[in-house]
This record gives sequence, C-alpha cells and structure tokens, in this order.
Amino acid sequence: MSRLRVESFTISLDGFGAGPDQDLSNPLGVGGTALHGWAVSTRTFQKHLFGADGGQAGLDDDFAARGFRTVGAWSLGRNMFGPVRGPWPDESWRGWWGENPVYHMPVFVLTHHPRAPLVMEGGTTFHFVTEGAAAALERARAAAGGRDVRVGGGVNVIQQYLRQRLIDEMHIAISPVLLGSGERLFDGVDLRALGYACTQHVASAQATHVVLSRQ
Amino acid sequence: MSRLRVESFTISLDGFGAGPDQDLSNPLGVGGTALHGWAVSTRTFQKHLFGADGGQAGLDDDFAARGFRTVGAWSLGRNMFGPVRGPWPDESWRGWWGENPVYHMPVFVLTHHPRAPLVMEGGTTFHFVTEGAAAALERARAAAGGRDVRVGGGVNVIQQYLRQRLIDEMHIAISPVLLGSGERLFDGVDLRALGYACTQHVASAQATHVVLSRQ
Repeated sequence: MSRLRVESFTISLDGFGAGPDQDLSNPLGVGGTALHGWAVSTRTFQKHLFGADGGQAGLDDDFAARGFRTVGAWSLGRNMFGPVRGPWPDESWRGWWGENPVYHMPVFVLTHHPRAPLVMEGGTTFHFVTEGAAAALERARAAAGGRDVRVGGGVNVIQQYLRQRLIDEMHIAISPVLLGSGERLFDGVDLRALGYACTQHVASAQATHVVLSRQ
Repeated sequence: MSRLRVESFTISLDGFGAGPDQDLSNPLGVGGTALHGWAVSTRTFQKHLFGADGGQAGLDDDFAARGFRTVGAWSLGRNMFGPVRGPWPDESWRGWWGENPVYHMPVFVLTHHPRAPLVMEGGTTFHFVTEGAAAALERARAAAGGRDVRVGGGVNVIQQYLRQRLIDEMHIAISPVLLGSGERLFDGVDLRALGYACTQHVASAQATHVVLSRQ
C-alpha cells in the first residue's frame, strides 16, 4: 500500500516550520536555515542535495536516509517551489534547484494557478495541480507506481493533508533554536483529535526526532 | 544576584503546557498528566512530591534536581493553586497539596482577587498578590533572601514574566506526547525578539530538555 509520508520536516522549539518573510535570498524564511543544521551535516543530504561524498553517519543520517527510501513521487506546496505569488507572470521560474533538481521523480505542486508541466533534467517533472490536496495525492500515487508519496511541505500543505487524515506517518525533527515567528506546524490542527500519536522518540546532539503515526 | 527561573516546565510536542478543561479531577487539564512521565519517575520528584525513597537517577533526575537548588521563593498563577475561578467564595480552598504542601517556603500566587496569606504546615505560606507579575516578583525576591525565585507556571504567568523580560532562565522539557489543545507556552510570545536563545539541549528516552536563557 502506497503511503503518504512527511519526512525530515523540521520545526523550532517554539513550533515554527519556517521563518517569516520568505524571499529569493531566504527560501526558508528569515532564520529558517538554522533549523536544518542537523540535516545539512548528514551524509544523505550531502549526497542528495549537493552531490558530495562527505557528511556524517549516525542517528541524524538514519532519519535523513529513511526519507528517501521507497518514495516514488513528491507533493509540494507552491511556496516550496518558489517565491512567486499569485498568477504565474511567465514560465521563467523553474524552482530553487537549477536545471537538475534534487527530486529525480515526479513532483506535484499545489497551486491555485494553472501551469503546464515542467520537465527538468535528471528525471524531475513538476506537475501543477489546482484541484486541491486530495487530487494532488491521487495523481502522485498514480505516478509513484506503488511506492510512497513524500510531502515536502510547507506547513500549509502538510496541514491540508493532516486535516483530511491523509498522512500515514510524519517524521518531525525539532531543532534547538527559536524562530520567534513564522508558520507553526501544529497551529489549528488538533493531531490528537485527528487520531495521531507519537510512536518513536529519540534525539541526537543536534535535534530531537519524533515519528507521528495515524492510529 | 537573585534570578527568576522556570524549572521542569513541560510541554507536549504540539506545544501545550497543560491540557484543556482543568478541574478538580484534572489539575493539569485533560491529558496533562501524560506530560509529566519523565518527572514523576525521578528520584527528586518522588522525594519532593511524595516523600518516597524510590525513583530513578540519571539525566531526567539531574534536571528535576536543579529545579530545587538555590530556590528561596516560588511564584504561581492562581490556576496552579486551584480550580476556583473569580472572587474567592470563602477560604476553604487551601491548594492541591494538603496541609503540608510541597513548597516549604513562601509562595506568591498571582490573582485578581485579594485574599489573606495562608500559612500552611512545613514552612509554606501562600501570599496572594493582586498588583501583577512584577510586583509578585519583587515580593518574592524580598522573601527569597538572596536565593532565586522559581516560577511554577502556568502558561499565562510564565508569559507575563517573559513579556517583561523578567525571566533569566527556563528549563523546558518536551514530552513525546500530543495534547491537541490547551494552552500553548509560546503562543503570542516572540522569544527570539525578546532576546532569548537556547543554551542547552539534551534528551533522555522520556523527554527532550532545553534551557532557554536571556541574552
């Protein structure tokens, strides 16, 4: 059964999944990069994001690595794809990741504004879905060929999936930083009432890792 | 210098410091007791709360124990003292803790409704302060005789002290549970803007412990 998973999604101690004021120079909002210290240092992220051979093994890497296993498609919110808001002025924005994005599989981008699919190098195609989260999941599942669908974020998209109880499992990392403001992952989403529970809890020096599972 | 400290204050993964619907049978709100698993099992809590000799040593106990060191007075919100709301109907409510409360020192209870000091067995006296958080702190400092003042909570009282930058250091424990609703410690309080930072981060199997310090 193809599952819908959140992986390596990181929040601050005060609960924010991204800093405020996202723009071209702050893809994760102001202060948002501090969240991801645990991930950037891992062997998995070094390889997947930068094509580099370095990085650390260990607990953080174990969690980073599981996020890439048995994944056949991604679902992203429009703000994860880029800083453009409102109708697409043209097709010049092609994502944060250059001509060969890190995904190497189909990526379904939730947006209110239609756009033709964008075929990139290395196997990544961005599909733009205007019919909502459930429709994006249906298309992503079809494309994943029996493998799982990974939700990359952001907060708003994860919440849309959570409110419909569509997410099977979430790996959340809590970084020991304060962001002060931004988007809170758990704001307005009662995970207990939705039937989720914490099924794993372990920490490294750099982050606390929890897995929340639908019961 | 006498400091104002929060110690062993526990929040859920979704950020709540207490469950909803506090009443006589749920002093910590519905689900709130699940938060405190890490603390109840420690040697320190067994001794201080139950007068028992058992309990575990280790990291959780180290944090529980530091909370009682060099403390000369406490400050509590009125809801920590009991479930009575509004003007005191009489003086029959004498706290959750019986005739010999766990504090054994002066405790300054923030309330909008005046009440005469309540002298209990074992050295605890509850003083009721109607002039606000800063006034409660001033009186608690005077009573502490050079030692620190510990804020017991709840969320609302901690936030009042934080907004005035009166808290020097907070030990927060994050328990791997979801409460879903209740009072959020970090709601409406921008700790980063207030000049706090995480200065310690370590985890046991039962909780993640962080220390937030005023810079």
